[in-house]
Amino acid sequence: MQGPSPWVPVPENSQFPLSNLPYGSFSIETEGPGRRVGVAIGDHVIDVGAAARATGSPLSHLLEGHVVNPLMAAGPQTWNELRAAVTAWLSDTRYQDQVGPHLIPRRQVTMHLPFEVGDYVDFYSSEHHALNAGRILRPSGDPLPPSWKYLPVGYQGRAGTVAISGTPVRRPSGQVRDSLDVTPSFRPSHALDFEAELGFVVGVPSDLGHAVPLSAFEDHVFGVVILSDWSARDIQAWEYVPLGPFLGKSFLTSVSPWLVPLAALKAARTDPPPRDPPPLSYLDDADHPWALDITLEIKLNGRVISRPPFSSMYWTAAQQLAQMTSNGASLRTGDLYGSGTISGPRPDQVGSLLELSWGGSKPFQNPDGSTHTYLADGDEVVITGSAPAAGGGTLGFGEVRGRVVDPSDT
Amino acid sequence: MQGPSPWVPVPENSQFPLSNLPYGSFSIETEGPGRRVGVAIGDHVIDVGAAARATGSPLSHLLEGHVVNPLMAAGPQTWNELRAAVTAWLSDTRYQDQVGPHLIPRRQVTMHLPFEVGDYVDFYSSEHHALNAGRILRPSGDPLPPSWKYLPVGYQGRAGTVAISGTPVRRPSGQVRDSLDVTPSFRPSHALDFEAELGFVVGVPSDLGHAVPLSAFEDHVFGVVILSDWSARDIQAWEYVPLGPFLGKSFLTSVSPWLVPLAALKAARTDPPPRDPPPLSYLDDADHPWALDITLEIKLNGRVISRPPFSSMYWTAAQQLAQMTSNGASLRTGDLYGSGTISGPRPDQVGSLLELSWGGSKPFQNPDGSTHTYLADGDEVVITGSAPAAGGGTLGFGEVRGRVVDPSDT
Repeated sequence: MQGPSPWVPVPENSQFPLSNLPYGSFSIETEGPGRRVGVAIGDHVIDVGAAARATGSPLSHLLEGHVVNPLMAAGPQTWNELRAAVTAWLSDTRYQDQVGPHLIPRRQVTMHLPFEVGDYVDFYSSEHHALNAGRILRPSGDPLPPSWKYLPVGYQGRAGTVAISGTPVRRPSGQVRDSLDVTPSFRPSHALDFEAELGFVVGVPSDLGHAVPLSAFEDHVFGVVILSDWSARDIQAWEYVPLGPFLGKSFLTSVSPWLVPLAALKAARTDPPPRDPPPLSYLDDADHPWALDITLEIKLNGRVISRPPFSSMYWTAAQQLAQMTSNGASLRTGDLYGSGTISGPRPDQVGSLLELSWGGSKPFQNPDGSTHTYLADGDEVVITGSAPAAGGGTLGFGEVRGRVVDPSDT
Repeated sequence: MQGPSPWVPVPENSQFPLSNLPYGSFSIETEGPGRRVGVAIGDHVIDVGAAARATGSPLSHLLEGHVVNPLMAAGPQTWNELRAAVTAWLSDTRYQDQVGPHLIPRRQVTMHLPFEVGDYVDFYSSEHHALNAGRILRPSGDPLPPSWKYLPVGYQGRAGTVAISGTPVRRPSGQVRDSLDVTPSFRPSHALDFEAELGFVVGVPSDLGHAVPLSAFEDHVFGVVILSDWSARDIQAWEYVPLGPFLGKSFLTSVSPWLVPLAALKAARTDPPPRDPPPLSYLDDADHPWALDITLEIKLNGRVISRPPFSSMYWTAAQQLAQMTSNGASLRTGDLYGSGTISGPRPDQVGSLLELSWGGSKPFQNPDGSTHTYLADGDEVVITGSAPAAGGGTLGFGEVRGRVVDPSDT
């Protein structure tokens, strides 16, 4: 099914066809520091609040802030109404005079965090990643923790250090113990890594004490970003027993600037992998399969090193939402939860250097013949993603980009 | 040293003498739902924003919201100026005409969360508690985790479920495994517990990438609340390997309504216990000892069951702040961090039912002869605290109160 065509030129293979329409927060340097809500289309951003005012949209009051939170809080019916309106503004030439002045070339804008983060939770839901990580980090034990196949394992992360793509990745210092027979020391991490993930963003809040069932996923979750869970493996290894990762993770989590609405990912829905044992009823997703055919691409210093397939995840985002609220924990608009590192079954599908370098023990080769394990100062990681779009072609999320800087850089 | 005397009557042994002056957020039912910032004095609350306007204080703009965050962000010099001003308003009879109309009997007000929570972190810094918990939960291993004496172990908690004292404690459901040879089931927790803690609240934010040294504790931390970290031990036991506590904790954390400024706790400062091994330099607090002589009192259904001494904590809040930011993680105004369960060396000084009932295996006796392990529906827990006040006497924090309700109650 071919959808409407935009009157705005959209280059072939753009991440931002009319079937995507992701939301972001942008500013224009020449116009001062003001941040506004925008929607990406081809090589442009539409100032969607200004377009709403120009067209007399009754939804313009939701677009006057600098982040997407008011729109996200308004719920699925409103999301659909605005999506239909933006589609019309960009495809019906009768709107061209009203909307055209509010299109800005994307190269002129600076992007900011698209939403104010409530709580941040990170899951651990790729079986391939969990098996790899278990074999590397706990070689003497069962690679999968005992509860892993019964529930999506997760933990709370630090919301205040979720930042926009491009934020420098300052190498963290921390307490580490270099071997079992020495006392720990405080020094910069020698095992700085990324974890390539998707992040799901909650729009509609829920009440304390009321679990959100798997079937209500689309009523609460607004959209998806790419997420890099920067990780210091040596800090994490020393601190994480028994209360889990803390300072090995809390220094920075980067997200892509474009928040792709679930409505744009309908063509990407697919069946999750078989589960054995079958999930308990509150996690049974037979009627609500939310696996998504999204493929990430990870570049290290300009070279593709992996293409992790999100469709291989054992637990879906709908199951993660049900798990996260199963104890009655409430949701707030802006809550963000990460899928966990996405790793497929093949070595060129893993989502972390932990796996690519097998815990730092098996350096891999760079194009110039040098070898790599964890991130070196100056290294740059770029993560992009691609999903089938409605009507054909693909859509994207922008990118998560991070360059490692020495801790003494200011 | 005797300080000034208030013209407002303050009952003997009040938690709120003139030397305390804690901040809260209150509303008056008869005047609609508006929330305002108040300061407790004796049996009254002063509407501190209204008093500031009435006296022409240049700080009134910081007190116009419904929470203490703007004041907390303003920094120690402003905190001291306002504290001096409020002290003058309440002790110098020349202010009586201006300020008197803004005093409200405390029994007429409803209290709300005094601050908007940024991130919430929970530590694990009582050696007595960690030893007890280790012996109960991991009887075959070393009770203290390997890093425990080298760093304050902690984890990120859920900020969105931090709530004011009095919020019902709805028994959470979750996935639990009742024994090693059965598959897990989803059911209400049978091991609902509290953890009696103090919570420290950050006022002044810090920049990403810049650690906050131990010596800067007073430049960033505004004050202290009592905190109850409600915990479902059976949910936690099944989920917590390897990423730590999540749903066993994230359903509710309650705090006291009165945020006691650090400035009110000068007389409570005392020396921390000896540490062996000596802390690494970034945690060396020889020049900044921040142990505090605060004693909690825990009542279960009206009967005192424990009096945990905060002065026995192995790691101080200043060390916890240094640890939490040692990787460059930034602070935001409203960040809250819990001390961890406070347990002294004696059985009548422990801060959880986990310890009081030795993991549920040793029921303790109620006054009516019945026995108790974890919390039953209808149980009510009240935690109060007492610290020496400047000029003699003691001061308090109000209370954390929670009554357990059945999950089917709405």
